[in-house]
Amino acid sequence: MLDVCLPGTGGVVPREDRWLACCWLEYKGKAILIDCGEGTQIALKKSGCKLSHLSILLITHFHADHIAGLPGLLLTLGNSGRKTPLIIIGPKGLEKVVQSLTVIAPILPYVVKIHELEEDKEEEWNMDELTISHLSLSHGVPCYGYGITVKRKPVFNPQKACELGVPKTAFKMLHEGLTVRLEDGRTIEPETVIDEKRDPIRVCYFTDTKMVKTMKDFAYGADLLISEGMYGEENKLDEMLKKGHMLFSHSAQLAKDAVVKRLWITHYSPALTKPERYIENAREIFSDTTLGYDGIRVTL
Amino acid sequence: MLDVCLPGTGGVVPREDRWLACCWLEYKGKAILIDCGEGTQIALKKSGCKLSHLSILLITHFHADHIAGLPGLLLTLGNSGRKTPLIIIGPKGLEKVVQSLTVIAPILPYVVKIHELEEDKEEEWNMDELTISHLSLSHGVPCYGYGITVKRKPVFNPQKACELGVPKTAFKMLHEGLTVRLEDGRTIEPETVIDEKRDPIRVCYFTDTKMVKTMKDFAYGADLLISEGMYGEENKLDEMLKKGHMLFSHSAQLAKDAVVKRLWITHYSPALTKPERYIENAREIFSDTTLGYDGIRVTL
Repeated sequence: MLDVCLPGTGGVVPREDRWLACCWLEYKGKAILIDCGEGTQIALKKSGCKLSHLSILLITHFHADHIAGLPGLLLTLGNSGRKTPLIIIGPKGLEKVVQSLTVIAPILPYVVKIHELEEDKEEEWNMDELTISHLSLSHGVPCYGYGITVKRKPVFNPQKACELGVPKTAFKMLHEGLTVRLEDGRTIEPETVIDEKRDPIRVCYFTDTKMVKTMKDFAYGADLLISEGMYGEENKLDEMLKKGHMLFSHSAQLAKDAVVKRLWITHYSPALTKPERYIENAREIFSDTTLGYDGIRVTL
Repeated sequence: MLDVCLPGTGGVVPREDRWLACCWLEYKGKAILIDCGEGTQIALKKSGCKLSHLSILLITHFHADHIAGLPGLLLTLGNSGRKTPLIIIGPKGLEKVVQSLTVIAPILPYVVKIHELEEDKEEEWNMDELTISHLSLSHGVPCYGYGITVKRKPVFNPQKACELGVPKTAFKMLHEGLTVRLEDGRTIEPETVIDEKRDPIRVCYFTDTKMVKTMKDFAYGADLLISEGMYGEENKLDEMLKKGHMLFSHSAQLAKDAVVKRLWITHYSPALTKPERYIENAREIFSDTTLGYDGIRVTL
């Protein structure tokens, strides 16, 4: 099961009542954090996300509200005794940005492995059954959306297996898709003891960007789309396009077109103090829209 | 009148319930901020300190809990339309540190003027009647304590001036210490219309450091000494000396020796969740000790 949480949902400037936008995804005790603005380490604590579980940090882009909290986070990981490497993935130039920011965190007791993404290069990162892919967005600076996919094993039917005389010690192999040869010489194919195949779980995260055509295919059929809504008011359209951002209605249209199961909106402008006023602008287009808030959480 | 506030009082790591240590001093609508850790811009808002009043930022040293909030603060100043220069003063290497941290804040709509302090060079900065001086501390890295002094005019006696036939238009000049020649040819010396001279107001701020002999003279007679208390427990003595920090009792002894009027303790370890448990360790030595807390404020 994949736990997803938004410890922060704000854009541009941290507010007293709203942490900067980030996303925590945890699977089997290992976690991915998307973005790390000023205060994100506090937001994580408030939302009960355990820093000791952090394996991979994904950076969308290098605007301060998405990365200024990096040196503090790295130091706190060190202070808490971390020894295992931390992987940081982000746009080209990441190595220089991390080096610059860590001028005030020069010594860490663990290795930081940096991987710079390339715009036109398809590549995937794996963490157990979980796969990370990226999509180039449009925000005036190199910026990536991320897709997190968890492959799921099909449903195993132990009753069928027992009826076929399969010993319990062979259940795991069959569930993992391996053919088993029994002591009596029979061969058991995994398909014979499986009820149904299950689709993978997919979560997509898009900040900051204006609408890009490729987002639809990337997010197609996702269980959860988390997408930015810098403003709710429709009359902010020109301003949003110029700044490389989206309205609530943009994210809702994307959710509808990509036939996702649910949508969370995030990355509100600091001037947008009451996003709930504009929820209908999104729900009229895509009914299963939820306004993200600090601490929102779901298990998929 | 000088307003002094501690928007944050924590050390090392920002906690959910305690911002990182910093100090806001405001005089006649212009403000000085000492240190800017992660989240300080939020702490300032919470304490009602107006960023638009900020004139000078003093950095004690380059450990992340004292400077990691710099890029966010600079950007927020820019977003709020600042055009006037910001002066940043700190240890040698400040220019490089600011340049490195602003890799994520490359364009600001105002000038940042940087001044690097030299260990053995006495120098003072003025902001109207306010003077800033610095003292080298002992923390393993270059680190400065700061003294803020406001000169005060003597008490003017308008009744005496009237009796001498001085016109009201000459009151201001006499109060500022200038000799005035009246129309009837008489010369009025300022001393003749003044009741008493007033001592300047002085505030001293010491983090992070172990006890240094020169602190006593630097803080001598201060109206307010703000000094670090990483721990309250006396059995942490060896650890504190090794780390270059002070116990509550150290700051209290300094307050007593320097004959200051009052002491605020700040910069608590994140492990010190209940500093009030150890207040007597300080008050037994110096009775006018107050445990600093986020938002503590006084007008001197």
